[in-house]
Amino acid sequence: MTRIKCTVAYDGAAFFGYQVQPGQRTVQGDIEAALQEVHKGRFLRISASGRTDAGVHAMGQVFHFDTDTSIPPEKWPIILNQKLQNDIAVLSAEAVSEDFHARFSVEAKEYRFIIDRGSVAMPFRRHHAVHYPFPLDVTSMREAAACLLGEHDFTSFSSAKTEVVDKVRTIHLIEMTEHDAELIFRVKGNGFLYNMVRIIVGTLLEVGSGKYEPSDVKRMLEAKDRSVAGKTAPAHGLYLWEVEYKK
Amino acid sequence: MTRIKCTVAYDGAAFFGYQVQPGQRTVQGDIEAALQEVHKGRFLRISASGRTDAGVHAMGQVFHFDTDTSIPPEKWPIILNQKLQNDIAVLSAEAVSEDFHARFSVEAKEYRFIIDRGSVAMPFRRHHAVHYPFPLDVTSMREAAACLLGEHDFTSFSSAKTEVVDKVRTIHLIEMTEHDAELIFRVKGNGFLYNMVRIIVGTLLEVGSGKYEPSDVKRMLEAKDRSVAGKTAPAHGLYLWEVEYKK
Repeated sequence: MTRIKCTVAYDGAAFFGYQVQPGQRTVQGDIEAALQEVHKGRFLRISASGRTDAGVHAMGQVFHFDTDTSIPPEKWPIILNQKLQNDIAVLSAEAVSEDFHARFSVEAKEYRFIIDRGSVAMPFRRHHAVHYPFPLDVTSMREAAACLLGEHDFTSFSSAKTEVVDKVRTIHLIEMTEHDAELIFRVKGNGFLYNMVRIIVGTLLEVGSGKYEPSDVKRMLEAKDRSVAGKTAPAHGLYLWEVEYKK
Repeated sequence: MTRIKCTVAYDGAAFFGYQVQPGQRTVQGDIEAALQEVHKGRFLRISASGRTDAGVHAMGQVFHFDTDTSIPPEKWPIILNQKLQNDIAVLSAEAVSEDFHARFSVEAKEYRFIIDRGSVAMPFRRHHAVHYPFPLDVTSMREAAACLLGEHDFTSFSSAKTEVVDKVRTIHLIEMTEHDAELIFRVKGNGFLYNMVRIIVGTLLEVGSGKYEPSDVKRMLEAKDRSVAGKTAPAHGLYLWEVEYKK
């Protein structure tokens, strides 16, 4: 038995999210169907670093599976991509030890969120960036973002539907870069709660528009109450960009 | 009567090309339907700088129309974008004199063509760049491109179906820039024949792969025979980027 770790990119537009759901096209469903073909009809469950919601993209989602085939690890991208549709692509694969787990061995994750700030929404970006044509004070947004760095209880910045009990996470980096008409958020941390990046981005946009002061973000954290933070930004601007593992 | 010049961007993926065709969704058809609504049911014909084929995108297509409404010119993008789907967007509009014609007043056009050179085709770019994972000698391609600069008879570089008689055109610029895993062609000239940019790109790719020598391109031009040039590159990598008009 060999454990294979794969990095996969997908365009979230046509998927009903990552996780298998009956009667819906999902990323996990497509990958497991492709693996089942390779394993002559035998079903294999894959484990990913985490779920992504409907519409959310991935540039570097990671999953693993165990195979009894003798296929060389580096051949898996070619084999799987032949069976997968072209809105999903396995970028790389390698053999890993049995104590590697795509979810439990995660050291850090990076998400990106893309805002199209053009006055008119760019047709090419309609599924891949969120159009926000209103003025933004990016300096205030950076000031607000600094309050979120480090270890905090992110209850206020996670969906009220979150089931996990421990809501303490560490954010290593929140960066905003302007590239042509786009504003790109990079958010990196040791783990993220449900909707956390989308609520952080939504709140920072409300700081940028003047609805909140940068210092309000500190109070939002302290309140530990989802209702005090800003709106959840739409799914289609979000990318699971990279997953880092312990060496 | 006021003549309005509009610049429009569209994602060619969902259109059956620019030109109206019965029973098909086209760029012209969508814009004319939007204008008809604004003009209380009266049909208006628009004139564009030229057609684009099915799958071909535009960042800066230009069209004009004559209106008897008193709508301020700068309001047209807002009004039309409210009626258009989000894969097409009017970027700007201005009033022009009656001797302006979107097609006949063209001074130069710029097309771009995007190649995704990654070993695995990027899901996000599947409708917007042509995947070409094979080695390319870009230096040879630039050398070959230089043979195409200036005024030439481009019979060999246009579809055999081209109906125009005069096939002499002037190319001002052919530039290839590498940006991450993408190779971006910029081709600018005073006018282009049917499929001309796609055949130029297809031929340069065959130079880059070693099938042709850069000097072969000169012989292809001289032959004035479509069958001696390279393949027509796929539509979905092509963008009508900008149209320039006489001042």
